[in-house]
Amino acid sequence: MEITIEDFRNAYSGIRSYVHKTPVISGTFLDERWQAQVFLKSEQFQPIGAFKIRGAANFCRQLGERLSSGIVTHSSGNHGQAVAYMAHKLGTRAWVIMPDNSNKLKIESTRKWGAEVILCKPTVEDRIRTSEEVATRYGAEIVPPYDHPWIIQGQGTAAMELIAEVKDLDYLVTPLGGGGLLAGTAAAMHYLSPGTKIIGAEPAQAADGLAGFLKGERVTDYKPVTIADGLRTIVGKEPFDIIKARVHNILTAEEEEIRKWMYSYWREVKHIIEPSSAVPLAALDGVRETLKGKRIGIIITGGNVDFEALP
Amino acid sequence: MEITIEDFRNAYSGIRSYVHKTPVISGTFLDERWQAQVFLKSEQFQPIGAFKIRGAANFCRQLGERLSSGIVTHSSGNHGQAVAYMAHKLGTRAWVIMPDNSNKLKIESTRKWGAEVILCKPTVEDRIRTSEEVATRYGAEIVPPYDHPWIIQGQGTAAMELIAEVKDLDYLVTPLGGGGLLAGTAAAMHYLSPGTKIIGAEPAQAADGLAGFLKGERVTDYKPVTIADGLRTIVGKEPFDIIKARVHNILTAEEEEIRKWMYSYWREVKHIIEPSSAVPLAALDGVRETLKGKRIGIIITGGNVDFEALP
Repeated sequence: MEITIEDFRNAYSGIRSYVHKTPVISGTFLDERWQAQVFLKSEQFQPIGAFKIRGAANFCRQLGERLSSGIVTHSSGNHGQAVAYMAHKLGTRAWVIMPDNSNKLKIESTRKWGAEVILCKPTVEDRIRTSEEVATRYGAEIVPPYDHPWIIQGQGTAAMELIAEVKDLDYLVTPLGGGGLLAGTAAAMHYLSPGTKIIGAEPAQAADGLAGFLKGERVTDYKPVTIADGLRTIVGKEPFDIIKARVHNILTAEEEEIRKWMYSYWREVKHIIEPSSAVPLAALDGVRETLKGKRIGIIITGGNVDFEALP
Repeated sequence: MEITIEDFRNAYSGIRSYVHKTPVISGTFLDERWQAQVFLKSEQFQPIGAFKIRGAANFCRQLGERLSSGIVTHSSGNHGQAVAYMAHKLGTRAWVIMPDNSNKLKIESTRKWGAEVILCKPTVEDRIRTSEEVATRYGAEIVPPYDHPWIIQGQGTAAMELIAEVKDLDYLVTPLGGGGLLAGTAAAMHYLSPGTKIIGAEPAQAADGLAGFLKGERVTDYKPVTIADGLRTIVGKEPFDIIKARVHNILTAEEEEIRKWMYSYWREVKHIIEPSSAVPLAALDGVRETLKGKRIGIIITGGNVDFEALP
């Protein structure tokens, strides 16, 4: 079922008290390098340091009274923190299932908001099985990380804020992992700025999205290997259908370029971005001749970096 | 000769077209940790990524026509970049003397603005000798990094901006290296907010400032060993006299705490700060019981980090 503009507007008004209206940074070194105007929607300044709070907030809002027994998710990253944060804000319990090889910092960041972290074996099967056990035992609701319309609607609100502030974008570029953000962005911009071309950016070593986009159907037998830890997922079913219909192109970036661009951004802008957020920068730089004179929006997705394990 | 409030006002109006009015960040994790209100004057967002541009701009402005043959300095760090940047802006030549073991990144950053980098032996004697040779050969003016009233006046403008924006500070804290910033801050605040206590923060392993402060005279036979590369200098003569008269206290921080606080700030605020800028945070945390209920200003001095050599 297609997401309507009313769905997005409802999502936005529903989540406003939980998310920040993040700043749009412009006039950076990218303008000179690409001979373009670049607008960076800086989601690392969300309370949990990433855009994921938008989708989680919208999902929880929709649950209404079903929230009362608590919420559960399996994620070792930003989505887990988003769910923990929302439970804290809404006064309900949260369980976050994490693989037992997760680093301590991520476990601490999730516990910080009062969530109960349950360690499981580091396999997708065990994560799902454990989530379902917790959901059954406590009557908790599972909050999926990307493959759900409520999540997609929530993630689309970042683009809504950006286009309200910066008009006439030629391109709007987001990273592509599970696809919630790219799909939400494309679906929202279809209504709000149909002339803007929406572009996804993937690590070349996690390019299941591009493979599926070219083939016209989801590619699920892919093993992503990338430093961009937020993009190690396969594109979800719901996001894929929207991406197929509404996205202009998908670009890729090599690992070494992702690493370099993360540090360049740190050095030049003095804002922390995580490796996943460097993927659009590295990918766009590969086609920089086509950017001249354009107005380009980029969603900087987060700034949660494990500094002990820097690439 | 005492610096007057008119000196500071003239400095500020003279440098405004070269420096940014940097943002003051508040409402960070520090408020909760210290049970205080903390205001962070964020000088890493200056064009060269550090406050040093303020002193260099004021010095160059005062030179007037003597600028025409060019300017020279010896610095492997932020001051060298500040001089290079100012020469670029003012349309004159710059020579920056750097030790031949300087890292490539710093050399590149200085060359970026068109300055000529001259490598010398990594000794203070050879740096000074080479600077003087260049000054004599080309008729260039030497721009000192901290030990001059014009530099001190320029550095004081950061505090002027901060106190114009945030009133009634109980404490204002800056790192202490050569002393230009701390002296400029103390001298300006003496006029603008005499009730604010000015505090310097040094690495415990570069605490020549504290030693001199306690003794009542400069300590010059000290070998600083610290990751805070901006604070490896001995306090200058001119700054020392002001610090002795106007500074309330000097606090110190251990190396491991400096390292930890730099990463904590990156993680929580998502802004890059260099090790020197973490020194006030680490030092204040050591006395955090005394901070409760206070309004505290901190000058975040810069964000130029050598990411290849992270501690």
